Amino acid sequence: MNAEMIAEQPQAGADLKTLDFSVWMLERLARTEDALSLWVGVNTPAGLGEAMRYAVLDGGKRLRPLLVWAAAEAVGGHAAATLRAGCAVELIHAYSLVHDDMPCMDNDVMRRGKPTVHVQFGEASALLAGDALQALAFELLLPEEDDIPCSMQAKLCRLLGAAAGSHGMAGGQAIDLASVGKQLTESQLREMHRLKTGALLLGSVLMGAACNAQTEARAIEALTEYGQALGVAFQVVDDILDVVADSATLGKTAGKDAANDKPTYVSLLGLERARAHAEELRQQAHAALARSGLADTQALAALADMVVQRSH
Amino acid sequence: MNAEMIAEQPQAGADLKTLDFSVWMLERLARTEDALSLWVGVNTPAGLGEAMRYAVLDGGKRLRPLLVWAAAEAVGGHAAATLRAGCAVELIHAYSLVHDDMPCMDNDVMRRGKPTVHVQFGEASALLAGDALQALAFELLLPEEDDIPCSMQAKLCRLLGAAAGSHGMAGGQAIDLASVGKQLTESQLREMHRLKTGALLLGSVLMGAACNAQTEARAIEALTEYGQALGVAFQVVDDILDVVADSATLGKTAGKDAANDKPTYVSLLGLERARAHAEELRQQAHAALARSGLADTQALAALADMVVQRSH
Repeated sequence: MNAEMIAEQPQAGADLKTLDFSVWMLERLARTEDALSLWVGVNTPAGLGEAMRYAVLDGGKRLRPLLVWAAAEAVGGHAAATLRAGCAVELIHAYSLVHDDMPCMDNDVMRRGKPTVHVQFGEASALLAGDALQALAFELLLPEEDDIPCSMQAKLCRLLGAAAGSHGMAGGQAIDLASVGKQLTESQLREMHRLKTGALLLGSVLMGAACNAQTEARAIEALTEYGQALGVAFQVVDDILDVVADSATLGKTAGKDAANDKPTYVSLLGLERARAHAEELRQQAHAALARSGLADTQALAALADMVVQRSH
Repeated sequence: MNAEMIAEQPQAGADLKTLDFSVWMLERLARTEDALSLWVGVNTPAGLGEAMRYAVLDGGKRLRPLLVWAAAEAVGGHAAATLRAGCAVELIHAYSLVHDDMPCMDNDVMRRGKPTVHVQFGEASALLAGDALQALAFELLLPEEDDIPCSMQAKLCRLLGAAAGSHGMAGGQAIDLASVGKQLTESQLREMHRLKTGALLLGSVLMGAACNAQTEARAIEALTEYGQALGVAFQVVDDILDVVADSATLGKTAGKDAANDKPTYVSLLGLERARAHAEELRQQAHAALARSGLADTQALAALADMVVQRSH
């Protein structure tokens, strides 16, 4: 998956800067994978660990950990905190996919090119594995070792809870659930996605920024704008890909939104205007970075490009 | 429920000490209920808040918050931290019941004398409400207001995560799931319950103790022994009540363990030995309190009595 992603960088950008970003990304992905493999589902009873590892390892674009890394490095963040924060947001993302795929929710049988967790391990194990992954996300942020100041641990947990909970991702999922078969206005659709996918993407950026307690207000404000624009862009592109890509490329069932009669940016704006909107958001994200006062925002800029230009 | 619980204090104990405990308990229950009502499912989108409040409010013995209060007061704990810690453990307990009751787990339709959350709101909403309650439990421990030191916030989150996650409650549930229809040894049964119900009960006591950062190691050791004995006693009594009580008294389906072919202390020890074991554990809990060096452990002692002598 990682090698593929790099191969799919647009040709026009295959200059030194893009190669640098690819190297940067591969290195952070490797550290994230190693840490997840070390921390997830270890010494866990009765098959629970196996289901947790299946849900998390060997798959996923790791966009959220990469956002944490990029933001943390832009502010000169604490290295151990950065690694843990990146893994924590990925666990929240992974648990949400496990629960989302269950029969009572989206009832999806394929994810990242393999059977979903409840298909592989049964519904009860999927439910428990998701629950345990959420708890583990917080546990990872609270090590007794690693010399992360307790104020930073608390701040990271606070941001994660806000991004994951009823005023973040879980709240957005509830709106999504209530909206099936309904005609939403653009502002209602935006509100749903601001919470459902946007909150954890923004949370990733803000957690990265919180890996340095001295990050300036001006930078946090700019990173907030960046994270918000990127969050919307991600969803717009997701909606576009659901229409134009096939299941094999996506690694999950394509055309699902239309089949489920779900409102999307494409159903609302049409394909061309949705594409233009994604590009506009990419530019907004870049502009926010330019205002941040931070010296090194290249990785953040490249991630915004990747989100808009991705093919899966 | 509260009034009933007080009415059910054993007659022999209806002296001044018991009346004091009843007053103590009612006062903490009221503060806990008020706080839960203030904090749970507020400004939460699309019916999610309603399901969260249904799962948490107007029901439950609130044993875990009471343990937090009793332990925190024994060590002279931070008042705001105590209130939040009590509510946080109750939210973890409440979410676990919502998910446990779902069709893919225990498939139970009645809880605390009313329809379970998935019966009332649908499975998808129950799944989401449980997820959101777990996140909220951590959020409650991390207020920016209230002047709780960040070291205490981090410590409380650490204890909650350990009690709730794959090496605590969720791990115990996985063992439970894997054990249906199997003959467990007494030590396997103990290990399952140590995690499934014991971890959060012990966690409640330890979180209470963590509401004062200066609590002595000797006291924490004794409170750990107390919490462990109480945790086992709780489960032994639960197993006894499942056999001897009726559904109306329990507020949930009685005889469920036998019907589900689940191993229990009663199926393993028989009813009389199970009762003797509960009494033995109650005395162990008292002995641990006597060794704690803490001046005021009356409420903790009374809670151990209540756990063993309860009728539901």
